[in-house]
Amino acid sequence: MTDPSSAPVVDLVEVGPRDGLQNEARTLSVETRTALVERLVEGGVRRLEAVSFVRGDRVPQMADAEAVLAGLTPRDDVALIGLVLNRRGAERAAETICDELNIVLPVTDDFATRNQGVTVEQGLEHAAAAVEVARQAGKRASVTLAVAFGCPFQGQVPVAQVARVVERVADLGIDELAFADTIGVGVPSQVHALAELVRGDARVPGLRFHFHNTRNTGYANAWAATTLDLSGHGGRVSLDASVGGFGGCPFAPAATGNIATEDLLHLLRRSGVPVEGADVDALGSLVDTASWLSGELDSPVQALLGRAGDLLGGAAS
Amino acid sequence: MTDPSSAPVVDLVEVGPRDGLQNEARTLSVETRTALVERLVEGGVRRLEAVSFVRGDRVPQMADAEAVLAGLTPRDDVALIGLVLNRRGAERAAETICDELNIVLPVTDDFATRNQGVTVEQGLEHAAAAVEVARQAGKRASVTLAVAFGCPFQGQVPVAQVARVVERVADLGIDELAFADTIGVGVPSQVHALAELVRGDARVPGLRFHFHNTRNTGYANAWAATTLDLSGHGGRVSLDASVGGFGGCPFAPAATGNIATEDLLHLLRRSGVPVEGADVDALGSLVDTASWLSGELDSPVQALLGRAGDLLGGAAS
Repeated sequence: MTDPSSAPVVDLVEVGPRDGLQNEARTLSVETRTALVERLVEGGVRRLEAVSFVRGDRVPQMADAEAVLAGLTPRDDVALIGLVLNRRGAERAAETICDELNIVLPVTDDFATRNQGVTVEQGLEHAAAAVEVARQAGKRASVTLAVAFGCPFQGQVPVAQVARVVERVADLGIDELAFADTIGVGVPSQVHALAELVRGDARVPGLRFHFHNTRNTGYANAWAATTLDLSGHGGRVSLDASVGGFGGCPFAPAATGNIATEDLLHLLRRSGVPVEGADVDALGSLVDTASWLSGELDSPVQALLGRAGDLLGGAAS
Repeated sequence: MTDPSSAPVVDLVEVGPRDGLQNEARTLSVETRTALVERLVEGGVRRLEAVSFVRGDRVPQMADAEAVLAGLTPRDDVALIGLVLNRRGAERAAETICDELNIVLPVTDDFATRNQGVTVEQGLEHAAAAVEVARQAGKRASVTLAVAFGCPFQGQVPVAQVARVVERVADLGIDELAFADTIGVGVPSQVHALAELVRGDARVPGLRFHFHNTRNTGYANAWAATTLDLSGHGGRVSLDASVGGFGGCPFAPAATGNIATEDLLHLLRRSGVPVEGADVDALGSLVDTASWLSGELDSPVQALLGRAGDLLGGAAS
């Protein structure tokens, strides 16, 4: 087996309350969204994207972020992330208990324009403003580069195109940079190529990836992320995952969503990869939460661990 | 991207007509099973496990192997594999157009006893006899080590336990050795650990893996296999996959089956990994065959490519 002492640490980022919900047909109540966060925290999750400060009239699934947060019991050992797109969202987030602002910036003009009504250049200005707001509020700031592995409108996204955006974002003074496979076209070779863009770059202290399993590449990508040279990032990599694998993809209506937290943790645990931000010995709690959420959303669990059972548990011997 | 010149070659082994069918509830007719093989060959598959020479009264889905083969148009550019468990099966296979005999040998007594009615030691004798029959018939011989990643009865399977069986099998004079994650509990660290058992071992000219995606680890395992040091095995690794991902798992009735051929090929193609034994530019044909097979089996396609669509195609840029 892999020698755990040499393995990277994976920091789990649970995105179920945000990405897991925003593409589902059914909009959950504020109370249910708060309950989801509370359940995840009870199940051992310690860092999660809890809300999105986007316009509720455009994304009703994400409306009333402040109310969702107001219902939570604040805990010093839990980091809450709020997604923002611009200064306005950042200013809303700054007034809440969120510990971190995650600013989403597409790397193609096609996607930025259709999804956020801005060019990449304008998005960079919005990101800079949001980072400044986060700083002034004493909160962490991270940037997620959307469609970094491929774009539903532009198609292939060359690494050089991502590099140009990375170069600008790295100068904003961020705590973490994430490469997002927004539409589930990413493959492991891209994980290596994109990580290479920031390897050893002190302006990018934290490295994060966001994978969807739309075409059954998500867990391979996650594994590839654990094999990177992470020495310039504290020997750590953050991985987004969504309990139950909810989330879907607006560009592939029949497709599955984010990689599932319980399946990812099972894989990492059996591989002997140390995980922080989640309790790999409490996968049953996550399976239960996924089942409960499936009922609330009237949408099937995409994760497989609950269906197949955690037959052996523990690390492979 | 990965430099294709340094990447290993993946030899695809299509196992849909065997493992894809043998755990499905519905038994297909001989004609349909022949048609499945023909469709796969038309879709570019060049090496496939077409039949199993087990007792038809025990595994009705696999009955009448000779009849399935008799319906095929022999082709010099297609390698047909027949699964056998012992001398009797090998003798049946030797009389057919099969090019290769794949002998399945579990590495735990618990599994060997319940599945084949023999101990591992007895299974080794059966394997030796079958290899000899294959040799005398001028056919290739490969051995698949079942439950090498974990056993539904014994539980964890230590690498040292697999090593003892490997040591014996390597002396049989085989063309290829496969490690099989029969029940879908395998993780990438195990792929590395098991491959290490035969690294540079000239008695194991070919290295093969058989993965199930029961808990969403199958494609990560496949990716891990492409990152191995394969210099002792011709720079190549064979990977089993099943069109549509059919196959299920008798020990997890609700679970998914083998990794799906079309999803694996899509992952490898976009990663720039060279593939032989399949046409990565003909994934649409495989998607169509999976859809057709789903109707014949009255069982849903587990592969995701057909649902999500091959949005970008080609290698990632």
